[in-house]
Amino acid sequence: MSILVVGSVFFDSIETPHGKIDRALGGAATYFSVAASFFAAVQMVAAVGEDFPQDAIDFLTQRGVDLSGLQIRPGLTGSWAGRYHEDMNQRDTLDLQLNVFKDFRPQLPASHRHAQYVFLANIDPRLQLMVLDQLSAPGLVGCDTMNHWITGSRSELEQLLTRVGILVINDEEARLLSGERNVVRAARRLLAMGPRRVLIKRGEYGVMQFSAESVFAVPAFPLEEVFDPTGAGDTFAGGFMGELARSGDTSEAGLRRAIVYGSVMASFVVEDFGMNRLRAVTPDEIERRYRQFVSLTDIDGP
Amino acid sequence: MSILVVGSVFFDSIETPHGKIDRALGGAATYFSVAASFFAAVQMVAAVGEDFPQDAIDFLTQRGVDLSGLQIRPGLTGSWAGRYHEDMNQRDTLDLQLNVFKDFRPQLPASHRHAQYVFLANIDPRLQLMVLDQLSAPGLVGCDTMNHWITGSRSELEQLLTRVGILVINDEEARLLSGERNVVRAARRLLAMGPRRVLIKRGEYGVMQFSAESVFAVPAFPLEEVFDPTGAGDTFAGGFMGELARSGDTSEAGLRRAIVYGSVMASFVVEDFGMNRLRAVTPDEIERRYRQFVSLTDIDGP
Repeated sequence: MSILVVGSVFFDSIETPHGKIDRALGGAATYFSVAASFFAAVQMVAAVGEDFPQDAIDFLTQRGVDLSGLQIRPGLTGSWAGRYHEDMNQRDTLDLQLNVFKDFRPQLPASHRHAQYVFLANIDPRLQLMVLDQLSAPGLVGCDTMNHWITGSRSELEQLLTRVGILVINDEEARLLSGERNVVRAARRLLAMGPRRVLIKRGEYGVMQFSAESVFAVPAFPLEEVFDPTGAGDTFAGGFMGELARSGDTSEAGLRRAIVYGSVMASFVVEDFGMNRLRAVTPDEIERRYRQFVSLTDIDGP
Repeated sequence: MSILVVGSVFFDSIETPHGKIDRALGGAATYFSVAASFFAAVQMVAAVGEDFPQDAIDFLTQRGVDLSGLQIRPGLTGSWAGRYHEDMNQRDTLDLQLNVFKDFRPQLPASHRHAQYVFLANIDPRLQLMVLDQLSAPGLVGCDTMNHWITGSRSELEQLLTRVGILVINDEEARLLSGERNVVRAARRLLAMGPRRVLIKRGEYGVMQFSAESVFAVPAFPLEEVFDPTGAGDTFAGGFMGELARSGDTSEAGLRRAIVYGSVMASFVVEDFGMNRLRAVTPDEIERRYRQFVSLTDIDGP
């Protein structure tokens, strides 16, 4: 089963204490698509400029990403430049040029309208709603958002939350959106806003999943070095939705395994700059790290 | 098998956003002993003043804590007063009176010198070494420490670490002692200093165990409300060492289960002020929460 993702494609210039990279392929839809492509076929809907290079198109196509929904528009692809602090948990935006992304209006090709697995990456909730309106009968819809929309487009976001099954959000955003400092109370409030499941990403502390019936917590993979945290959350979402589409198992157990696959993919992406590690990782490495996650968390022994 | 613990017994006056409590029974050895007493008999070595009340002695005795190593000395029991910040992760010490604890020199009764399970709670590493010198052939020794000794008594602490099997420490202390910011690198450095296992307590994010062979991570129990975090780390250590003494199983699997029992006890103690919740909790509740931990962390389903 394939996955539809709608979101941003950007060029990222990133500086961390470990070095820097200039105008690397990035954006939420890109990280999501590449991570998900290890598990299932992906349909990506986004907008780039005429400067978008052929090698990026070739790379995505070779990874099984269907680009028939990618709008190539007059002008330049969006770009972002950021610098991470010494402890990697904070970053400053040095430059942001939305360019053609500014007027992005998602248009789904006919072939995308029957998508069963859909992920609405972090964009204006009006656009996320616009995507939902173009879908015939989506099976499982996940979405992300960010502080900018939580404070600036709250009513649209609240409307969106009544129409998605899974909210994937980081802890800071969960606090802001719920008005609750405690993560458990925050999750309960978010569940009351509509989604059947809330996944809270906690960076180096892993991920928690909340539903009305149960709570699941998985740690992040213990890494000696994080080179570049950019895209970790979108990569997590890609591995998570990818595994759900691959297995077709949306039971509690299926979702938990998908959360671990998401965590596996996120643990790889931060090991190198930008998308470099995702370009090199193999299915065998993914399965091996999945088993390491089982060993890391199994109370009855490694 | 019984457990020997050496550490502080204090009166705590605590203020949190949820309320306050005055001169409640506290101190590392007390929290440790009460938590461990649900699993095994405990021998407590500490010093209190002549003001130490009979009802505290009765309470500890009823919990199966052997007080023959408790020195009752002329003067007052130590006392501490602290106030937690709104987010409960930080606290200010408002007052500290060491009183008789200032000249505490641990003296083990003959009956304690063959102890197999020993925990050296956070005290001057010189005193921790003094305890080890009085033991004939301890099986498993755990220890805790704090910033004060890491910076002020480093060489004694390093000497101690060559003689203990398990270091139980929080993440901030692990960073300070190792000089490494990353938790995995910090743990590797600490293992190189002597202990076979390093347990790093991460507050609301749970506990990680490192050895040369494996890593284990368990989340904290998701609570909607933390009333008072005082004693959580010592309560964790008490449940952990208590379960090891009860099971006699120091295999990797046995240690992991003991870490979960420690986490269970810590999750109870923070639900009420001071030791109140530990006074009320039942063995059935402990077993039920242990099963909830299994469900919370099991990748293959709740």
